[in-house]
Amino acid sequence: MPSEKHHPLEEIFHPKSIAIVGASSSEPETGWTARLLDFGYSGHLYPVNPRATEINGLKAYPTVRDIPGSVDYAIFNIPARLTPQIMKDCAAKGVKVVHIYTAGFSETGKAEGKKLEEQVAAIAKDGGIRIIGPNCLGVYYPAGSLTFSPIFSQEAGNVSFVSQTGVGATRFVQLANERDIHFSKVISYGNAIDLDAPDFLEYLDGDIETEIIACYIEGVRDGRRFLEVVKQCLMTKPVVILKAGLTESGAGAAAFHTASPAGSESVWDAFFKQTGAIPVNTLEEIADVILTLLRMPCPKGRRVGIVGRGGGLGVIATDTCERAGLKVPPFLPETRRQLEEIIPEAGAGVRNPVESALGIGEASDFYTKGLKIVDADPQIDFILTHIGADVYGGHQSNLLEQLLKAVEVLDSTAQTLTKPVAVVLYAGEHLETVAAVLEARKRLLKAGIPVYPTIEAAAKAVSRLIRYHEFADR
Amino acid sequence: MPSEKHHPLEEIFHPKSIAIVGASSSEPETGWTARLLDFGYSGHLYPVNPRATEINGLKAYPTVRDIPGSVDYAIFNIPARLTPQIMKDCAAKGVKVVHIYTAGFSETGKAEGKKLEEQVAAIAKDGGIRIIGPNCLGVYYPAGSLTFSPIFSQEAGNVSFVSQTGVGATRFVQLANERDIHFSKVISYGNAIDLDAPDFLEYLDGDIETEIIACYIEGVRDGRRFLEVVKQCLMTKPVVILKAGLTESGAGAAAFHTASPAGSESVWDAFFKQTGAIPVNTLEEIADVILTLLRMPCPKGRRVGIVGRGGGLGVIATDTCERAGLKVPPFLPETRRQLEEIIPEAGAGVRNPVESALGIGEASDFYTKGLKIVDADPQIDFILTHIGADVYGGHQSNLLEQLLKAVEVLDSTAQTLTKPVAVVLYAGEHLETVAAVLEARKRLLKAGIPVYPTIEAAAKAVSRLIRYHEFADR
Repeated sequence: MPSEKHHPLEEIFHPKSIAIVGASSSEPETGWTARLLDFGYSGHLYPVNPRATEINGLKAYPTVRDIPGSVDYAIFNIPARLTPQIMKDCAAKGVKVVHIYTAGFSETGKAEGKKLEEQVAAIAKDGGIRIIGPNCLGVYYPAGSLTFSPIFSQEAGNVSFVSQTGVGATRFVQLANERDIHFSKVISYGNAIDLDAPDFLEYLDGDIETEIIACYIEGVRDGRRFLEVVKQCLMTKPVVILKAGLTESGAGAAAFHTASPAGSESVWDAFFKQTGAIPVNTLEEIADVILTLLRMPCPKGRRVGIVGRGGGLGVIATDTCERAGLKVPPFLPETRRQLEEIIPEAGAGVRNPVESALGIGEASDFYTKGLKIVDADPQIDFILTHIGADVYGGHQSNLLEQLLKAVEVLDSTAQTLTKPVAVVLYAGEHLETVAAVLEARKRLLKAGIPVYPTIEAAAKAVSRLIRYHEFADR
Repeated sequence: MPSEKHHPLEEIFHPKSIAIVGASSSEPETGWTARLLDFGYSGHLYPVNPRATEINGLKAYPTVRDIPGSVDYAIFNIPARLTPQIMKDCAAKGVKVVHIYTAGFSETGKAEGKKLEEQVAAIAKDGGIRIIGPNCLGVYYPAGSLTFSPIFSQEAGNVSFVSQTGVGATRFVQLANERDIHFSKVISYGNAIDLDAPDFLEYLDGDIETEIIACYIEGVRDGRRFLEVVKQCLMTKPVVILKAGLTESGAGAAAFHTASPAGSESVWDAFFKQTGAIPVNTLEEIADVILTLLRMPCPKGRRVGIVGRGGGLGVIATDTCERAGLKVPPFLPETRRQLEEIIPEAGAGVRNPVESALGIGEASDFYTKGLKIVDADPQIDFILTHIGADVYGGHQSNLLEQLLKAVEVLDSTAQTLTKPVAVVLYAGEHLETVAAVLEARKRLLKAGIPVYPTIEAAAKAVSRLIRYHEFADR
């Protein structure tokens, strides 16, 4: 369901017909045509290939001009040198949007690539065609059965991602899907010779299917417009931005990836301070901050109560939280007294961090009472609990069972608390433990509780959530 | 084989007899007696428990005094309040070292705990007994079949770890074992009422079975001696230190974990600058830096050539390397020209980062020629290659096969290069991909090539290796 019926970018997500120019007859199972068919695209699909008559059971056409019906959208999977001619065909046919998957343009750093790019852009402009790309993967829109990867979730969600990296987008969507995050629109737009980040953001600002926006940006041509559009988006929804190419070498790498002017670190610092957009450094951090925005009510402050077994792990966790901009204050004496009553074990910390009882089974018994005691302490704004399945589950045969019991109790207890809860399920690197932890994570996520792989990931994500709300709620 | 026959700590690692005081008759499978028996300890083992006559098939004794033979080493698994009496028994018996597993002493922050601790220390001192602990897990020494966890590797190695966290040591040994790192000695020593970090370090300095020393430290009583001993160790072997409790809240947490005076951040900054010890912030970072020390010859400088598919991932990798203190300079024109010849694909970067061909199978073809070209560039001191099994392997059925082929080629090519190679195998969070990556990592590690889970982990570890050698080779 489009948000504004006549937005000029609407065709990108709701094409009634798509031409695949350069549809592969040699690798039919993995080509663009198969990908869209398998993903359930139900509009008209026209493979274009002068050396084939049929591809994936569909009639193939020698050129775009030969297609009988109208064409809303075309995907170019052809050598760069052929793009001007094909773009002319598209203009003649009245195609509205072209996604140029093909690379080999300005990002090569060579004059001929730059010239070719300008030539193609001019033809498209004259013909009233909007371009996504070149040098990009295009669109993933599960609600409309559009995808650039067969392994993405078919489930639609409310997060949109605007990305100048295609491979990075492929990684990011998977990281998000594994965290039970699903997408409205993902756009990989590469060199951005026509449509650029501000265009997509402007569209997503008005898109009722999008509640959170994330971006991977190497550079934008019109910095002022980008600033204004991001500000506009932030009036109604959070915007998470990974600005790549901030270091000296990184800026050089960005120039040769998407031919983007990277901008200096100080300019981008000022941008984040001014807009309240959420800055991150890695794809994992985008996924974790979105998870937090989706599943965690904003804590009233930065004071965290840490719950989990292991004294030294608690000290490391405390340092990590404080380095991420959180505070780990000691509990009130009354809280400590109550905790001591339910942790008979000598030496277990009750000051903050608090140690749950030894073992994963025992930890789950602790949750029912212990989390409520911590929740009641007025010194604390939210709870971070960590379960070391690698240490306490070890390689034991009933690890999964114990872990699932623990997360079940954690879930039912968390529903009764007054303050937000974040959970760290630490998996280690032993395969059976990883498998059990992934399953336990799935359960908690389905119950609406945010789960992170490390204390650092959790602390940074919650800190960013708080900063976002400090800004948004001014 | 002891390094110095008469070092006073020798008994810790080579006890001819061990008494388990408080040997469990209720949970015989998981108690200390079973643990040592299962791990293959071949000395005399004496369970002590006044309410049992036999434990794990061994005769149990009511007190230490009742044991017929001599006792070198005793493990206390008893309530804290009983420790003075048992320590008296040990003194009477002529026990040389006591490991107090029991907690509930000064770390509780209570006067009675502190008093009890002093009392026990005094009895031991009078009796000529050295103490490990209290509030700790003791010793893991695979060459002598000593362990505090049944899941640790039986294989001995040349790394020793001195740790004020027991749970953290349990996690760390597993992280290390998964990276094919094996141990000489691991000592979890808790509150350190007698033997402290400087004592263990002094021993390890002269230990021919130890080539790398790592520490988790919350605080040391005698800072000056610690400084001198670390300097002494660094004359012949690297010392990696995780100093926990550096933040304000972290220092408070450390005080209640092992009752340690944490010391200020500026003091510890000066310590690292002065000694050349390698500072890290997490247990994973200790494992990664040890892996690097063990498997990577030190690069001649900080200039890295990045090889791997994905333009945006390359830009993020470049930023990450530069933030870790490395440099990613552009290749020489001749290098780029040669790379272009073997990467026919348009748009693939050849400037640094360089993109291998698309797909994991194709990447392995690229390695044979591409790595040699990068290796020959005088602008580059070492190669960092990353394989995105999550993106290029996707969920494909032959992922493991393709990945193993790639790492085989990577291995055989790396042996012919003149510069060191570090490999990042990125697994994502899809279980089948994780399984394939863990297997591929195992193969590379066995071939002597260092493998890291992320670019950040690799960049930080190599940067630390270089810093260590800058210091050590002055």
